Amino acid sequence: MALPDLPIAPELAVSEWFNTPEPLTLEALRGRVVLLHAFQLLCPGCVAHAIPQVQRIERAFAQTDLQIIGIHTVFEHHDAMSPVTLRAFLHEYRLASPVAVDLADDQSPIPVTMRRYAFQGTPSSVLIGRDGVVLHQSFGVEEDLVMGARIAMALATSQVSQ
Amino acid sequence: MALPDLPIAPELAVSEWFNTPEPLTLEALRGRVVLLHAFQLLCPGCVAHAIPQVQRIERAFAQTDLQIIGIHTVFEHHDAMSPVTLRAFLHEYRLASPVAVDLADDQSPIPVTMRRYAFQGTPSSVLIGRDGVVLHQSFGVEEDLVMGARIAMALATSQVSQ
Amino acid sequence: MALPDLPIAPELAVSEWFNTPEPLTLEALRGRVVLLHAFQLLCPGCVAHAIPQVQRIERAFAQTDLQIIGIHTVFEHHDAMSPVTLRAFLHEYRLASPVAVDLADDQSPIPVTMRRYAFQGTPSSVLIGRDGVVLHQSFGVEEDLVMGARIAMALATSQVSQ
Amino acid sequence: MALPDLPIAPELAVSEWFNTPEPLTLEALRGRVVLLHAFQLLCPGCVAHAIPQVQRIERAFAQTDLQIIGIHTVFEHHDAMSPVTLRAFLHEYRLASPVAVDLADDQSPIPVTMRRYAFQGTPSSVLIGRDGVVLHQSFGVEEDLVMGARIAMALATSQVSQ
Repeated sequence: MALPDLPIAPELAVSEWFNTPEPLTLEALRGRVVLLHAFQLLCPGCVAHAIPQVQRIERAFAQTDLQIIGIHTVFEHHDAMSPVTLRAFLHEYRLASPVAVDLADDQSPIPVTMRRYAFQGTPSSVLIGRDGVVLHQSFGVEEDLVMGARIAMALATSQVSQ
Repeated sequence: MALPDLPIAPELAVSEWFNTPEPLTLEALRGRVVLLHAFQLLCPGCVAHAIPQVQRIERAFAQTDLQIIGIHTVFEHHDAMSPVTLRAFLHEYRLASPVAVDLADDQSPIPVTMRRYAFQGTPSSVLIGRDGVVLHQSFGVEEDLVMGARIAMALATSQVSQ
Repeated sequence: MALPDLPIAPELAVSEWFNTPEPLTLEALRGRVVLLHAFQLLCPGCVAHAIPQVQRIERAFAQTDLQIIGIHTVFEHHDAMSPVTLRAFLHEYRLASPVAVDLADDQSPIPVTMRRYAFQGTPSSVLIGRDGVVLHQSFGVEEDLVMGARIAMALATSQVSQ
Repeated sequence: MALPDLPIAPELAVSEWFNTPEPLTLEALRGRVVLLHAFQLLCPGCVAHAIPQVQRIERAFAQTDLQIIGIHTVFEHHDAMSPVTLRAFLHEYRLASPVAVDLADDQSPIPVTMRRYAFQGTPSSVLIGRDGVVLHQSFGVEEDLVMGARIAMALATSQVSQ
């Protein structure tokens, strides 16, 4: 009997990148652990809790090959959270890791990456293993102890040879 | 020997109001204590400390005739903090008291009310007595104990007869 | 029609004093505002919330004639919270204002001052006006804004002439 | 070339145990990860920061075989922090994991286990691997993210066969 296959993390759909000289793809990041954190700049829980946690993670795992990626998943107040406002937000909140603007389309007020991952809202986070599978996805902010343990376990896993 | 006259609070210069059915003026509020709090929606210290304190003041002094007025004093990232974004911000952060957009003009990136009060930045606050004089002005967030004491003392003062 | 008389604060019953060269009595303090705070050194809510608030009050009202008095009202774990342990506690927590050990007797595990004020538990606080009346008594920790306002109002009241 | 040997954690020297039906020894715990946390019940940093973190660790790692052990390392105010007071402290602060009273002797005001580990003060913590070696020792409280990561890594290590 085999364990059920864990799902491969869907690729990001992005209209604009910040804090990176060139676009990132999950496919190109295969072999590294990736932490996605979805937020909206006017989401009080994101600003008060999730963004500060991401900054603590940036510091705590600075010596590892963890790749942190923010996704600005605007699903409400679209006019209020444009890339212009996001750029100033990232400047003021000193978020250092790359941030992607989730791609909007005509099908839904919910942007494409958010639909692919079926995020329930913001903040949400996804931990992706070295082999590209979704190790954990959660809505809301988890305790630092649990988050630290989970990231460390993912980092400790050797890359699956192929 | 007379005490030196305290300065009369300069009038607000406002391009748009939120959370009030009609514009407010300090002149019309003469006889009430007024707390002005100047903020920018992308100012981390405002969002983390000043806005929550204003909400605690709204609750603690709900049974008094204190008038709280927010002033959105945009002096940087002007394109990022438009009234459209402010409207969504006020909705998300559930600020109940009236908020004025400080009037921008061609003379300076600093808006008019901010210049009149010579605010050093955001957050700033001004406590105005029943007779319209500036009782206290500060840059940054003060301790709740001190703020509570100062507002209570202002409220306890009878209106000066004229 | 007259307002109902507010109760005069019962006198303290004390077996030992700390942080004061000589014993204090409420009678001798008539004319000043007094803040009593009842605590136990092993009460988690006292240590985490009430004691830090008292220290903030010590700082915020240092320039006034407010008299702060702690009362160590041991009503449980009596052997665990002796004056020897209290002395070390006050040293470690750097409480500067006078602290009284509430007088124990044979009638009850609840000490005498605690019975006189009918405290429901710890932390409790009592604000006493210049004329010796109980202005406010509460169980638990109140918001700093409310506490600051209440103390300021009591301090603003002129002493009743007699 | 071999890695330098990590030191084997010194055995605990204990005069009294709480929260365990029988005494524990590190030797008998070989094969499990052990987190020692040294504290004093009148140490403000222990009460405000270290004990709450231990309680979060108790919850976060409840499903693992991590063994948490508190050590009450009294090196000052000896009369004030007797086992009688410790028992009440553990009751009030609801610490669930086993706690040892560090053995006092005539040689020093510093108890025996504290000397063996050369703790610099309280709070201190020691993480011991499945093979009994000291993986990490620190003075003060570390960030939850780092602590969570370190414990998870220790738990992930298979027991060394012997």
